[in-house]
Amino acid sequence: MAVLGATGYAGVELLRILIRHPRVKLTAVTSQQYVGKRASDVYPSLAGRCDLILEELRVDKVASRSELAFAALPHETSMDVVAGLLERKKRVIDLSADFRLHDPKAYQRWYRPHKVPRLLREAVYGLTEIHRKAIEKARLVANPGCYPTGAVLGLAPLFSEKLVRETVVIDAKSGVTGAGRSSSVELSFSEVNENFKAYNVGVHRHMPEIEQELGELGGAAVSVLFAPHLVPMNRGILSTMYVELKKTPEENGLMKLYRNFYRDEPFIRILPDGTFPQTKDVRGSNDCVIGFRYDSRTERLVVITAIDNLVKGAAGQAVQNMNIMYGWPETAGLEGTALVP
Amino acid sequence: MAVLGATGYAGVELLRILIRHPRVKLTAVTSQQYVGKRASDVYPSLAGRCDLILEELRVDKVASRSELAFAALPHETSMDVVAGLLERKKRVIDLSADFRLHDPKAYQRWYRPHKVPRLLREAVYGLTEIHRKAIEKARLVANPGCYPTGAVLGLAPLFSEKLVRETVVIDAKSGVTGAGRSSSVELSFSEVNENFKAYNVGVHRHMPEIEQELGELGGAAVSVLFAPHLVPMNRGILSTMYVELKKTPEENGLMKLYRNFYRDEPFIRILPDGTFPQTKDVRGSNDCVIGFRYDSRTERLVVITAIDNLVKGAAGQAVQNMNIMYGWPETAGLEGTALVP
Amino acid sequence: MAVLGATGYAGVELLRILIRHPRVKLTAVTSQQYVGKRASDVYPSLAGRCDLILEELRVDKVASRSELAFAALPHETSMDVVAGLLERKKRVIDLSADFRLHDPKAYQRWYRPHKVPRLLREAVYGLTEIHRKAIEKARLVANPGCYPTGAVLGLAPLFSEKLVRETVVIDAKSGVTGAGRSSSVELSFSEVNENFKAYNVGVHRHMPEIEQELGELGGAAVSVLFAPHLVPMNRGILSTMYVELKKTPEENGLMKLYRNFYRDEPFIRILPDGTFPQTKDVRGSNDCVIGFRYDSRTERLVVITAIDNLVKGAAGQAVQNMNIMYGWPETAGLEGTALVP
Amino acid sequence: MAVLGATGYAGVELLRILIRHPRVKLTAVTSQQYVGKRASDVYPSLAGRCDLILEELRVDKVASRSELAFAALPHETSMDVVAGLLERKKRVIDLSADFRLHDPKAYQRWYRPHKVPRLLREAVYGLTEIHRKAIEKARLVANPGCYPTGAVLGLAPLFSEKLVRETVVIDAKSGVTGAGRSSSVELSFSEVNENFKAYNVGVHRHMPEIEQELGELGGAAVSVLFAPHLVPMNRGILSTMYVELKKTPEENGLMKLYRNFYRDEPFIRILPDGTFPQTKDVRGSNDCVIGFRYDSRTERLVVITAIDNLVKGAAGQAVQNMNIMYGWPETAGLEGTALVP
Repeated sequence: MAVLGATGYAGVELLRILIRHPRVKLTAVTSQQYVGKRASDVYPSLAGRCDLILEELRVDKVASRSELAFAALPHETSMDVVAGLLERKKRVIDLSADFRLHDPKAYQRWYRPHKVPRLLREAVYGLTEIHRKAIEKARLVANPGCYPTGAVLGLAPLFSEKLVRETVVIDAKSGVTGAGRSSSVELSFSEVNENFKAYNVGVHRHMPEIEQELGELGGAAVSVLFAPHLVPMNRGILSTMYVELKKTPEENGLMKLYRNFYRDEPFIRILPDGTFPQTKDVRGSNDCVIGFRYDSRTERLVVITAIDNLVKGAAGQAVQNMNIMYGWPETAGLEGTALVP
Repeated sequence: MAVLGATGYAGVELLRILIRHPRVKLTAVTSQQYVGKRASDVYPSLAGRCDLILEELRVDKVASRSELAFAALPHETSMDVVAGLLERKKRVIDLSADFRLHDPKAYQRWYRPHKVPRLLREAVYGLTEIHRKAIEKARLVANPGCYPTGAVLGLAPLFSEKLVRETVVIDAKSGVTGAGRSSSVELSFSEVNENFKAYNVGVHRHMPEIEQELGELGGAAVSVLFAPHLVPMNRGILSTMYVELKKTPEENGLMKLYRNFYRDEPFIRILPDGTFPQTKDVRGSNDCVIGFRYDSRTERLVVITAIDNLVKGAAGQAVQNMNIMYGWPETAGLEGTALVP
Repeated sequence: MAVLGATGYAGVELLRILIRHPRVKLTAVTSQQYVGKRASDVYPSLAGRCDLILEELRVDKVASRSELAFAALPHETSMDVVAGLLERKKRVIDLSADFRLHDPKAYQRWYRPHKVPRLLREAVYGLTEIHRKAIEKARLVANPGCYPTGAVLGLAPLFSEKLVRETVVIDAKSGVTGAGRSSSVELSFSEVNENFKAYNVGVHRHMPEIEQELGELGGAAVSVLFAPHLVPMNRGILSTMYVELKKTPEENGLMKLYRNFYRDEPFIRILPDGTFPQTKDVRGSNDCVIGFRYDSRTERLVVITAIDNLVKGAAGQAVQNMNIMYGWPETAGLEGTALVP
Repeated sequence: MAVLGATGYAGVELLRILIRHPRVKLTAVTSQQYVGKRASDVYPSLAGRCDLILEELRVDKVASRSELAFAALPHETSMDVVAGLLERKKRVIDLSADFRLHDPKAYQRWYRPHKVPRLLREAVYGLTEIHRKAIEKARLVANPGCYPTGAVLGLAPLFSEKLVRETVVIDAKSGVTGAGRSSSVELSFSEVNENFKAYNVGVHRHMPEIEQELGELGGAAVSVLFAPHLVPMNRGILSTMYVELKKTPEENGLMKLYRNFYRDEPFIRILPDGTFPQTKDVRGSNDCVIGFRYDSRTERLVVITAIDNLVKGAAGQAVQNMNIMYGWPETAGLEGTALVP
C-alpha cells in the first residue's frame, strides 16, 4: 500500500494505523515538503515503526509498487494523481474532496471546474455504514469529509425513513487538526487557545456533501443550515443537530429505529435515550457515538454525534474502507480504544 | 460597598473591577470557606490591591457598613441574606438565580419553593440594556445569568419587533468558569481538557430566564430550545442562535433594526453584516458583540453573540447596574479592553 | 488478571492496554466508588471492549480468580491488599508507592510507619530496564513513580559509570493526570488552564525513590534537588536534568555510553547529540526518549527525557513487567504508536 | 506617542495599555502588513477604543507627530528606524533586541554586525528596577527581553551582594505569545497544544543579555546555563533558577536582602519564605512575583519568578519606562490587576 501526502495530519494518522494493521505492508510514502527524509524524521513518534524514505510523488513509481493508494493530498491537486493511478489499474481511496460530489456542476460551484468529471460518477462515497456494498468493488472511494461523517451518520436513520420535516440545523464543533497541518496565523496557538468562534456559517464546502447524502437517503432534495465552530482542542467533532419531525415520535420508536439501522455495526454506538456523547469518548478510535433527545416542549429532536475527525473522520474510515475492498475483517487495524484521559 | 461570597469566581471578578472603580470603597468582603484570611491570601493577584480580611457573612454587620451589597452567593441560600439586607434599607445586586424569575411557580419548578415570593415581583431583572429605567430606582436587582445575557441581547431587537416565528434554537458554548469554583471530578482539568460536550440540553435552569425575558419583549409566550456546551477554555460564551422570521428581511433592514435598538449603548457592538464575533474579542471586558447573517437558502437568520461570562455575564454587568443605581457614568470601572491575545 | 482500582487514571489505562493484550484475560476489576456499575459505564470509551462489572475489593475473591493482580490503589491502603494476595500465593504488580522504598525508615519518613516492612525487602523495584532480571521471578513488583521513571532512565548510564559529581538538579514538568483522578479545586480546569507553577520543590515524595535508585546504580549515596512543575496538558512528563560530570566527556563518549547502556531496549530511544524529545512524541506509547547536550561554556550536561506518565510512567511499564514475569514478548500489548497530533 | 509595529503582540499590548493611560495621546500607529486598515479591524477588541489608521512606517512622519516612539519591530530591522528617530531629536523605547547588548561584538556574535554601534553604548537597558536613574534621562531605552526580565529580577539581589558561586542554572518556561505573532507550523495550535518541550537549550539569544546584566551587578563575568521551554498557554513566564551560594545563608538573611533590595518597588512582590508564584497571579498585570527556598539537603537556593511576558516582559515595562522618562507616576496606566481565573 502507498500513502500519498504522508506528512499531513491525515497522512500521518494513516501511517499510525497502517503500521499496526495485520495485513498491510507499506511500500511507498510520499511528501511534497520532506522528500528524502524518513517519515520518522518528521514525526519522531514513528521511529522504529515507520522509517521509510519520503519520496516525491510520481504516479508511475507508486503504481509499480502498490495495489492500492491512499491519497491524502490537497483538494484540486488530487484529481490528476487519482486519475493516473486508476489508468494504471490501481485502486484508490482518496481523502481529498475531489470525488465526493457526484455532480460536476456542484463541484464547480464549490471548488472549480473538474478535470475528470466522468470519475465523479464512478467514485463511491466512502461513508462505510451507508455505502458498504458499493465500496466492496469500488476502484475509487471518495473518503467523506470529517463534518459530513459526523452529521450524516447521526441523521441517516431519520432521512432513510423520511421522518424529517424542513431544514435541519447542524451546529458542529471541531478540534483544530480538522484544518490540517497549517502555517496560518489564524491557526497559531496564541490565536486559537482560549478562544471559540464560528466560521463559514452557511457557506462551508462540506455542506453540499451533507445535502447530497441526506438527499439520496431520503429520496428528495435537502437543505441544511450548517454552522461549523472551532474548539481549542486537537481532535474531535461534536455535531449538535436540530430536527423537526413529520410527526411526534412514539415511545421508544426512535431508539428502535437507530438500533435497527445500525445493527451489528462495529463502530457505531447508540447511547441510551436522553444521553449524549463527548468527544473524549472517541479520541484516537474509529467510533462514532450517537445520542438523542426529543424535546417535547419545542417539538424538536436533538441528535448529537461524536467522532475523532482524524480517525472516523479521515484515516480510520479510509482503512475501514480498504478492509472492505479487500474482504478483510472490517475492524482490522482499528481495534484501538480511545485514549482517555 | 460589600461583596458577599467574595472568593467565588464572580466574587473575585467583582473585586478585580471594584478596586479600580473611581467611586467605590470596599468596606466588607465575606467568604464561607476562608474566614479570617485576607482576600489576597486566597487570590495572590490581589496583593497590595485588596488585602481586606474575609469575614463570616452576618447581615447585621454588612448592613452597618455598606449601602449596597453585591451578593455572589449560591442559589437558594442567597434569598435569606437578600431579604435581610432589604429590611435594613440596603440596596442589593444579587448575582444568584434567586430573584431572576418573576413567577414563584416557575422558581419552584426549576429550583424549590421560594421563601420570599413577594420579592420576586419587586426585583428588577438586571439586563441593563433592556431594563435600564427600572434599575435606576431598584432596591433589588437580580443580575442575569451568563447564558441569558448572551442570548437575550442577541435576540431582543427581533422579539421587540415581533419578527420571530416559531421556536428559537440557542446553541450556546461556555468556558468552564461559568460553572463556578468547583471541586467536582467532572470539572477537573484532566476531564475537561481536550474534550467537548453538551450538557443539560433542553433542561438547563437558564432556559426559563430566557423565555421570560423574550416573552416580555415580544408580548407573547415563547419556547426556546436551549442547548449549552462546555468549551475547554476559562472565559467566554458564544451563543449561536437560529431564528425563523415571519417574513424575509429587507436589504439592510436587520442592520438598521439592531443599530437602532442598541444606539448609544456603550457595551454593545454590532458587527458588519455576515461577520461574527469570537470570544477572545471580549475576554476580560464588559462588551457584548453581536453578528448575524441571513441564510436565504434555508430562510433562517443566524445570530451569534460573544460575552465574557464573568464580566458582562456576571460581575461587570453587576457593576454596570450599580453605576446606574447611583447615577454614575455607566462605564465607570468598566473601561478595560479585552486581554488579547 | 485483575485490576484493583480500575477507575482511577492508572487503572483505566491498564484496562485500555490489557483489553488489546494477546495473552491476557481480565477476570476481575474493582472500584471503591462505582461498585456494581460496568467499567464502560464509568468510561464510555470502553463500551463493547470492557463491560465487566466493577466489584468491591475483596482479597479472597480476587485471589480465587486471578494469578496476578495489578494494584492501582491509593498509597498507604495498598499494602494490606498486597500482603493478603501474596499470602494467597498470587503475584502482584503494585502501582502505589507502598513498596518502592527498600528502607522502612525512609518509608516512615515520607509516608508513615509501614505495616509489612519485610515485604519492602522482597519487593523488586519495577524499573524494567534496570531490574529486568529480578523482575522475572518476583512475586511483588513495586512499579516506579512516574517522575522517577523519567529521571532515573535519563541518568542511569551516567551513575552506573560513576561519572557524576555533586548534586543533580532535576527540573521536571508533568501533565495533570499525574495527580490522579481528582476532585480538588486546585486541579480544576479553571485553576490549571492558562497557568504554570512549581510545587513541592525539594520535598516531593518521589525524591527518595530517585535517590535510592541512583545511589544503587552508582554505589554511593546521592542527593538530588527535585523540582516538579504542573503543565496545563493531560499527559506527559518532560524531565530536564542538569549534571556536573567528573571530567569533560570525550567526543562521542556520552553517545556511546547511552547507546550501549540501552542496546536492544525496545522502548528506549536515544536522540542524536544536541537534540531533545517533546512529550507529544510519546503520548499514549510506552516509549522513553532521551536527548542530551554537553554545554561546554558552563561544563554542565543537560539530559532531557520524555515519557507518557500514564504509560511508561505507570500502566505501560506495569504491563511490560507482567510480560517479563510471564516470559512473554516484552512488547506484547505495548506496540501502540504515540497519538500525534 | 507612536507605536511602531502596532499589530504584533507587543504592539497590540502597548495599545491596550496606552489607550487607558491618563497622560498619553496616541498619534501614530504603524504596521507593515495592515497599512490602511484601522487597528480595530485587525484586533476587534480595540473597536471604539483605538480606531486609528495603521500607516506605513516612515520615520519623518512619525517624528513630526510624536515626541516618543515605542518601536516594536523585528530584530535587525529596528536599528535603522531608531537611529533615524534619534537624529530627529525624538526619544525611543525599543522593544527589539537591537540595543540591549552594550558590546558590538556580542551583538555580532548573536545576531549580525550592528549598523550603528555607537548607539549600543548610549542605549540604557530598560530593566526599570535596576536602571531607573539612567532611564530618566535616556534618549534611547532598550527594553529587556521577556526571559531576561524574569531571570535578572530574581537573581539581582544575590549578584549585587556577590553571593553567587559558580554557574546559575535558569530553567525557564514561557507561554506561546513569547514567540510573537507567528505563522510557523511549529507554533500552530495542533503542534503546541498537549505538548511540552525545551528549545535552544544553552544557545538562546536572551542568554547574553542575562549574562551582561548579572555580570554588571556582580562586578565579574558570569556564565549562566539557560534552558527555555514552551508551555501550552498564551501568557506567562515562570523562571526556576538554581543557585549555589558562597556561604550558607543565615536565618532570614535572604528575605531581608530581597525585601530591602526591592523596597518600595510598586511592581515587585516577594513571597513568604518557601512559597512560590504561579503565572496566573500576574496574567495581564505588570507585576513580577518572586519566591525562593533554600534547600539545605543539597545546599542550593531555588528562586522562582513569574511575570506576564507581554506586560512586565514587554509592553508594560516599556510604559513603566516611559513614565519614568516623563516624570509621571511610575504606575500610571499599569494599575490593572491580573485577570484571574
